[in-house]
Amino acid sequence: MKMNKKLALVAFLCLSATYLNAQDHRFVTVNPTKPDATEFYDPEVRVVTPGAIPSDAIVLFDGKNLDNWESAKDGSAAKWDVKDGAMTVVKGAGNISTKQKFGDYQLHIEWRSPIEPETLKSQGKGNSGIFMQGMYEVQVLNSYQNRTYRNGQAGSIYKQTAPLVNATSKMGDWNVYDIIYTAPRFTVNGGIETPAYVTVIHNGIIVQNHTKIQGTTEYIGQPLNPVHGKGPISLQDHGNLVSFRNIWIREM
Amino acid sequence: MKMNKKLALVAFLCLSATYLNAQDHRFVTVNPTKPDATEFYDPEVRVVTPGAIPSDAIVLFDGKNLDNWESAKDGSAAKWDVKDGAMTVVKGAGNISTKQKFGDYQLHIEWRSPIEPETLKSQGKGNSGIFMQGMYEVQVLNSYQNRTYRNGQAGSIYKQTAPLVNATSKMGDWNVYDIIYTAPRFTVNGGIETPAYVTVIHNGIIVQNHTKIQGTTEYIGQPLNPVHGKGPISLQDHGNLVSFRNIWIREM
Amino acid sequence: MKMNKKLALVAFLCLSATYLNAQDHRFVTVNPTKPDATEFYDPEVRVVTPGAIPSDAIVLFDGKNLDNWESAKDGSAAKWDVKDGAMTVVKGAGNISTKQKFGDYQLHIEWRSPIEPETLKSQGKGNSGIFMQGMYEVQVLNSYQNRTYRNGQAGSIYKQTAPLVNATSKMGDWNVYDIIYTAPRFTVNGGIETPAYVTVIHNGIIVQNHTKIQGTTEYIGQPLNPVHGKGPISLQDHGNLVSFRNIWIREM
Amino acid sequence: MKMNKKLALVAFLCLSATYLNAQDHRFVTVNPTKPDATEFYDPEVRVVTPGAIPSDAIVLFDGKNLDNWESAKDGSAAKWDVKDGAMTVVKGAGNISTKQKFGDYQLHIEWRSPIEPETLKSQGKGNSGIFMQGMYEVQVLNSYQNRTYRNGQAGSIYKQTAPLVNATSKMGDWNVYDIIYTAPRFTVNGGIETPAYVTVIHNGIIVQNHTKIQGTTEYIGQPLNPVHGKGPISLQDHGNLVSFRNIWIREM
Repeated sequence: MKMNKKLALVAFLCLSATYLNAQDHRFVTVNPTKPDATEFYDPEVRVVTPGAIPSDAIVLFDGKNLDNWESAKDGSAAKWDVKDGAMTVVKGAGNISTKQKFGDYQLHIEWRSPIEPETLKSQGKGNSGIFMQGMYEVQVLNSYQNRTYRNGQAGSIYKQTAPLVNATSKMGDWNVYDIIYTAPRFTVNGGIETPAYVTVIHNGIIVQNHTKIQGTTEYIGQPLNPVHGKGPISLQDHGNLVSFRNIWIREM
Repeated sequence: MKMNKKLALVAFLCLSATYLNAQDHRFVTVNPTKPDATEFYDPEVRVVTPGAIPSDAIVLFDGKNLDNWESAKDGSAAKWDVKDGAMTVVKGAGNISTKQKFGDYQLHIEWRSPIEPETLKSQGKGNSGIFMQGMYEVQVLNSYQNRTYRNGQAGSIYKQTAPLVNATSKMGDWNVYDIIYTAPRFTVNGGIETPAYVTVIHNGIIVQNHTKIQGTTEYIGQPLNPVHGKGPISLQDHGNLVSFRNIWIREM
Repeated sequence: MKMNKKLALVAFLCLSATYLNAQDHRFVTVNPTKPDATEFYDPEVRVVTPGAIPSDAIVLFDGKNLDNWESAKDGSAAKWDVKDGAMTVVKGAGNISTKQKFGDYQLHIEWRSPIEPETLKSQGKGNSGIFMQGMYEVQVLNSYQNRTYRNGQAGSIYKQTAPLVNATSKMGDWNVYDIIYTAPRFTVNGGIETPAYVTVIHNGIIVQNHTKIQGTTEYIGQPLNPVHGKGPISLQDHGNLVSFRNIWIREM
Repeated sequence: MKMNKKLALVAFLCLSATYLNAQDHRFVTVNPTKPDATEFYDPEVRVVTPGAIPSDAIVLFDGKNLDNWESAKDGSAAKWDVKDGAMTVVKGAGNISTKQKFGDYQLHIEWRSPIEPETLKSQGKGNSGIFMQGMYEVQVLNSYQNRTYRNGQAGSIYKQTAPLVNATSKMGDWNVYDIIYTAPRFTVNGGIETPAYVTVIHNGIIVQNHTKIQGTTEYIGQPLNPVHGKGPISLQDHGNLVSFRNIWIREM
């Protein structure tokens, strides 16, 4: 609540005085002198019970099966491996997507790079990805003591924006991404009304702070901006045996 | 990394074709056809070791003493109570501030409402606050089954923006705020170049998503916008015995 | 209309191909292949007949009388001098304001510095001003071979933003300002939702290009941001015999 | 200059009082109490002599020849007709472009629709266009009593944004466009850093007020956003004998 009564009082007197003396400014709204002028009750804010999984979250993967997922390529059954509460890439099985599509949301997802030999380097090590609306990638990579291009390491918006810091866990340890995503809005003729934005917290550390997404995260060339509606969360099969677990989402 | 080779290839061929055929557009930069055209290595992203306290965090309160705090009023010793790893408001001791001042940062802070009788209601129950740069308040309140004005409940930017949802823990349980704060910038003549922004995650749930701070969070009247530099984190003595613990900050 | 048929065709084929091949992107809206998908007819655009005074303009001063003006101080009759189709400051008569109040608009106004001795300098020469909503000043000054602070010369947003160039007419010649003004919007609690913006064309030359107005244009100290509604156009009596003529406004 | 001494004085006293009393805010910059704290002299603002053609303008067409223009298609000589101080489309000669390329600028250009039979309608009547950086079109059309889609009439950003009003001159009369154009900026990886913006004044009437350009102005489908540098002013051969004259530009 108010910080300091004396300060508030002085400010109130001053501003009031300013306005009352300002005969030139008869069209100025007098600054409120009652606290309740700036107190708004409706609509009541919705209650969410916090916890490991918030009460309004949709669980996308609970460690048991891939019922909420499908092949990103053709909508057939998702063929990744499920074991010990985690799902793991199966080489050649391809990307998988949630069956449900989403717009704006908060996403919690955990991932783990496999133990791989030192001969694998840069983009070849623990490479996967999480695609917002199926097309904007937050990079997943074993970036622990494994240098690559800064806008391609773990926590980057792939080929766009490098993470603020490198907060990657040791190879074989789990990582957590908490992602707050705002979908782009398009004009009636197919232009961008507002771009997509994303905030990423990696292992509790902010690595993307309301970063503007410039368009699709292309391997080659500039971003594209196709018009689209809601889309799935997609996970990438990049040939490394990356695992995921504890995936839930809250629509915003 | 790249989502789908076929898609990327088609996009590449198409865009290339577009540009190559566009004789009217000789001034258009040819869209890159090599992946490395959009790969940037320098500067290397700084490493932060994640953990309960990230390796680059400044611990503001470790549960033992108030050495990093002072009276907000006059800079004298902070007179709040320290016990069992937490600090607790002492009625009349006034607000306390960090001795160190900060600009942009990520702040982790935990707070707990005291067990109070049902006769206490609305703003009278578990009221305190956390001030960014000493003047922009993220409200602390016992908002568990205790209705008040929506822009004055826990997780609100006080008297400005209500939280997206009410994620408050039960009375007597701890709450966690993870706050990502961007300080305002001012013009040479004292105007606002860019306003302050804040993201607040309450008990793991997003409640403020890059919310614009409109100015000081006044009890009465409109926000003010004094020019200022770095400022402290301040905690409010509002007469309720609210406790805080595990406070750390990462400068950005 | 379309620039080049070949280019459009190639772009069309490419984009279509991109989307049709993108099996991963079944949620992408197919890019329109018919021209009329991006043609919108309603509502019909309102017609304005152009001319020295556009057909929808409100004439604020036609050279004959000050019927549309009043004292800014107390709303009494405006006591400036009217002669030869122009109005001229009367020292001590004070600022004058339009009786009508305005929000967003296009304003046309002409002004002339009096012939004054070389001993008058800087802010002392041909000083007046035009206030948007009665509080945001576009400076009027004899800035022809008369240096002053850059953010206080003709065409500046007073004490905020200097003009892009100095396009002032010779002393005694008329100047024209074409001003496009967008009023600020405020939040329910008195914060700034969007600031005011202004574009100024001085003698046909752009000097302010969608410049953000930081708040009131104060002589001393930082800008203020009182909440207000529509306000008048005000003209300043700064003690120099500046003249104005041909004043019209179009509400937007 | 300052509006009202009493107001300024009160504001000054109030703000000073506010800050001096705010012992909680020792980190707040004291609001300046001297006028010169907000007066900036350097660098001196460049002088431009106003006139029919401002002293710093580049004349792109003075009515005599097309020396500054070339075929947009292949860079060969521009083959439009020059007569009576105007240039006129030659059907099939194709679009023409300035040889010089531009980024941000103010452009003055006049255009006239030919006298055409009533049987020609909508986009078929007096159709041409002016392309910023060769790819973003401000539509030229005989929109006098000739309805078409609102985002395709004179003064529109073609297939994007309709003009605020229809200010088109009668068929056969000259029209004036004053265009203030800000080029887009791109990120290193080919995304949009800031989009292009354009303000258009048609016959002295504002029709586009700092309108965001969404990308290329396509006949079919959504806008594209190729990366590019400076580009020419291009004029369209759409098969109607539209004329142009008095073309000058000021780089910004």
